[in-house]
Amino acid sequence: MKQVPVGVSARHIHLSKEHIEILFGPGYELTVMKDLSQPGQFAANETVAVHGPKSSFPKIRILGPARGKTQLEISRTDAFSIGVNAPVRESGHIEGTPGIKIVGPAGEVEIQEGVIVAARHIHFHTSDAEKWGIQDKQVLRVQLKGERPLTFDDVIARVSDSYALDMHIDTDEANAAGVKTGDTAVILD
Amino acid sequence: MKQVPVGVSARHIHLSKEHIEILFGPGYELTVMKDLSQPGQFAANETVAVHGPKSSFPKIRILGPARGKTQLEISRTDAFSIGVNAPVRESGHIEGTPGIKIVGPAGEVEIQEGVIVAARHIHFHTSDAEKWGIQDKQVLRVQLKGERPLTFDDVIARVSDSYALDMHIDTDEANAAGVKTGDTAVILD
Repeated sequence: MKQVPVGVSARHIHLSKEHIEILFGPGYELTVMKDLSQPGQFAANETVAVHGPKSSFPKIRILGPARGKTQLEISRTDAFSIGVNAPVRESGHIEGTPGIKIVGPAGEVEIQEGVIVAARHIHFHTSDAEKWGIQDKQVLRVQLKGERPLTFDDVIARVSDSYALDMHIDTDEANAAGVKTGDTAVILD
Repeated sequence: MKQVPVGVSARHIHLSKEHIEILFGPGYELTVMKDLSQPGQFAANETVAVHGPKSSFPKIRILGPARGKTQLEISRTDAFSIGVNAPVRESGHIEGTPGIKIVGPAGEVEIQEGVIVAARHIHFHTSDAEKWGIQDKQVLRVQLKGERPLTFDDVIARVSDSYALDMHIDTDEANAAGVKTGDTAVILD
């Protein structure tokens, strides 16, 4: 049975090096609060505020390290709440997505694009993918037998030597399934 | 193909006659803002505030008519937000569920139980259920082919002469599926 641990992503932000310096000051480097399941990735001690047209989130966790482009990942519930029409996208595919105002202790920046609802996906180390015959970008059906059983019919496989096996879903998806981080998902096909 | 229209339930409250009178005044009767899909049910013009341990919702829509027992229906996201550990329950099954403080223009009431996350379900008129061979309380697998396709593996059938065909899911479930009221679900078995 192809079992995968579940990781629930709360709303968070990835920042470019340029934006980190605008928001926190010249030369600033994020500091590690907690390592994440993907090697080298971490939750930073630092947070920012984001201001949408309808409301704000005063404290959005930054995930490090710095990325090429700033990207805010929220749930669809969050998107309605702050009044931003964020589409479901794979990470990094931010062309044509809405922007938002980001405020840090040293400054603020208005991004022109970068607000997405992350498409559900599973990170596979290359060895896991080979063992199970799964290709990068393959669409998988994945069952969650939590308090509210359901099957996601469109989970994207992402395969790399730099990934660790983990399924990433957002809080809407976790709440709809009644699961939490550390629960187990099963790939059906 | 067994197709069912989807109705997305935002957080709402059903009030007992006694609580309507405490919250709005002696002899008060709810007024109809909009009829709902189920015959005789309506969204009222009236709203109340509810106060949880962590935060509040200042404006919760009341659905009428009055019921035997007061019941607040919220999503799991809402439950985390206000700090109430609401379980997934069928409507009316509120034994042992958390309470909450409800505030109206004429008074307030602290209910001792009644806060639930509604279990997803489909209302069938008896004639629909007979046509498709579906029994009351049967557990169905139901597919939603929205922006984020998924299959709910545990949808409860509720059959009555007083129901109209409609699938009720909450906002977490709708957002996880990328569907809205009026979209179509398909019963798989």
